Amino acid sequence: MRTAAHVLRLEPYTPGEQPASKRVVKLNTNENPYPPSPKCAKVMKDFDLDRLRRYPDPVFGALRAEIAALAGTTPDRVFVGNGSDEILSLMARAFVEDDESIGSLDPSYSLYKTLAAIRNVKWVGAPIDSNTSLFLWTNPNAPTGEFADPKQIAAVARRYPGVTVVDEAYADFARDNCMALATAPGNRSLIVMRTLSKSYSLAGLRVGYCVGPKDLIEALYKVKDSYNVDAVAQAVALAAVKDQRWMRANVRKVVKTRTAFTKALARRGWDVLPSEANFVFARPPQGAAAADVFKYLKSRQIFVRYFPGPLTGDRLRITIGTDGEMKTLLDALDDRFKA
Amino acid sequence: MRTAAHVLRLEPYTPGEQPASKRVVKLNTNENPYPPSPKCAKVMKDFDLDRLRRYPDPVFGALRAEIAALAGTTPDRVFVGNGSDEILSLMARAFVEDDESIGSLDPSYSLYKTLAAIRNVKWVGAPIDSNTSLFLWTNPNAPTGEFADPKQIAAVARRYPGVTVVDEAYADFARDNCMALATAPGNRSLIVMRTLSKSYSLAGLRVGYCVGPKDLIEALYKVKDSYNVDAVAQAVALAAVKDQRWMRANVRKVVKTRTAFTKALARRGWDVLPSEANFVFARPPQGAAAADVFKYLKSRQIFVRYFPGPLTGDRLRITIGTDGEMKTLLDALDDRFKA
Repeated sequence: MRTAAHVLRLEPYTPGEQPASKRVVKLNTNENPYPPSPKCAKVMKDFDLDRLRRYPDPVFGALRAEIAALAGTTPDRVFVGNGSDEILSLMARAFVEDDESIGSLDPSYSLYKTLAAIRNVKWVGAPIDSNTSLFLWTNPNAPTGEFADPKQIAAVARRYPGVTVVDEAYADFARDNCMALATAPGNRSLIVMRTLSKSYSLAGLRVGYCVGPKDLIEALYKVKDSYNVDAVAQAVALAAVKDQRWMRANVRKVVKTRTAFTKALARRGWDVLPSEANFVFARPPQGAAAADVFKYLKSRQIFVRYFPGPLTGDRLRITIGTDGEMKTLLDALDDRFKA
Repeated sequence: MRTAAHVLRLEPYTPGEQPASKRVVKLNTNENPYPPSPKCAKVMKDFDLDRLRRYPDPVFGALRAEIAALAGTTPDRVFVGNGSDEILSLMARAFVEDDESIGSLDPSYSLYKTLAAIRNVKWVGAPIDSNTSLFLWTNPNAPTGEFADPKQIAAVARRYPGVTVVDEAYADFARDNCMALATAPGNRSLIVMRTLSKSYSLAGLRVGYCVGPKDLIEALYKVKDSYNVDAVAQAVALAAVKDQRWMRANVRKVVKTRTAFTKALARRGWDVLPSEANFVFARPPQGAAAADVFKYLKSRQIFVRYFPGPLTGDRLRITIGTDGEMKTLLDALDDRFKA
């Protein structure tokens, strides 16, 4: 057999659909409805193509320094990846032995399970299992949107014998975050991971980063590809991270829409989990199956996310778009439920 | 221990230096001295930043179709990665079991050994060892520049029980290549890998691709990150691949300079291996140690590559730059050897 046995067995991760049509209302992959900073556009326009002849900075010095300053730490505690996805994959290599396992909450980001399968180790879905050696804690969690207090995470991480990664993809939309835990001088085992895909509106650019203890960050540098972040991505990400004001303004708009949309759904009899992310996880009113509402919305060119299964199959995950997009969705729901 | 034992032991791959100064004559990492196609610059200038809000096409449909057409095959036999480096890393996951090993020529691209160490499997440096399960055959080889006839590779691959990957990073500078072997209907085990870093002048963009049997290509899709090639890289790479004429013109210039430079070195008493790549691997005249010439050139702001060790330590690998850059190097050598 030429393909490794565990790969033949592998059930690949299914990303949310990326419909090509611009007419679709796309609320299925937690993208930001507002554009990235105009400073990013300027970087693209002014980019000297001749720079692409050369290999990029293998350790993304300028970007790393900016992220370190933002996090209030030193560059040797910062790692950058080709999206958080790459960082997760590197962590599975760096912090997990062949006979060990990876843990996460359940439900949580469904990629984690696939990640363990690719790494050919066991995945355990439980709040904390001290037999695992890498614990991936999404906070706010997906698809629920629920927020765990950093104090609670700190207490659990302290007792956990392995590496705790707080995946803060949605933290900019939340009331608090764990960055201070990651940068604390005494921290030995906790890493905070962020992405530019959500709050910075740069899902297409593939840039994520993480901050943690120096020795763990060093291990990631050892196992990464030589030049894992391209020159354009480094430059555009740097411009985005420098423009905090732009990102914060977009986040405020999304949070405002989230509040209004949550109320609007509740008024229509939906059960909406309190969310601190840029999506809500909501159960349709009695008598309506989530899978049916999902299909109905799709027929109206409105894409949301449905995760089958006992823990998630009674709800839909709906990304917060513009006020206009949310109104289109609510109108479609009214058409159906008033009919 | 929190970091995996094999990672703690790991000797990381050392990429060639990337000096920041523009005044340096940089002939150390086989970059193309000529800029990428102006069509790439246009793509960057016209890029609608709002596209970056969205995730990129996870399977790079347009780029894959163009590469398939170029290779004379179908898109389901094409995979694209964040540089060839990522593809190599995915191959080490997809085609190698935990207790198997990876083979390559020796000397060859020094990353292969690191790759095996990261994958925590053995590396074997021998032309063909049927106990390995993945054989990485660089052709033209690096750092030697030597070219193996596709017929010879085909014959060896047929007998080899594992997956043969012909790493054709430098194939555009050579007289022939193995693409026809990769696309042949009867091919079950051979993959050809290419990069846009050298002939297309896009080292900074990080795009590589490979072509091979459908089931092996499928295995790579299963183990890759969800969105491994960003939206800008997909668009710029597509423009580059479509502009074959631009790439071919640059390649012709480099080959012409390679011929002239090879003769110029030979006239000065250097032993130059016949190269079909965009570099030469050359031994200084008797009495001059390669390491010393390397240091001397560096002191003159001319960077070439020196690989210590019994197989490579008596030579320097010199990238073919512009005629002007090669003259600067030759003048520096003349200063030293005539003194």
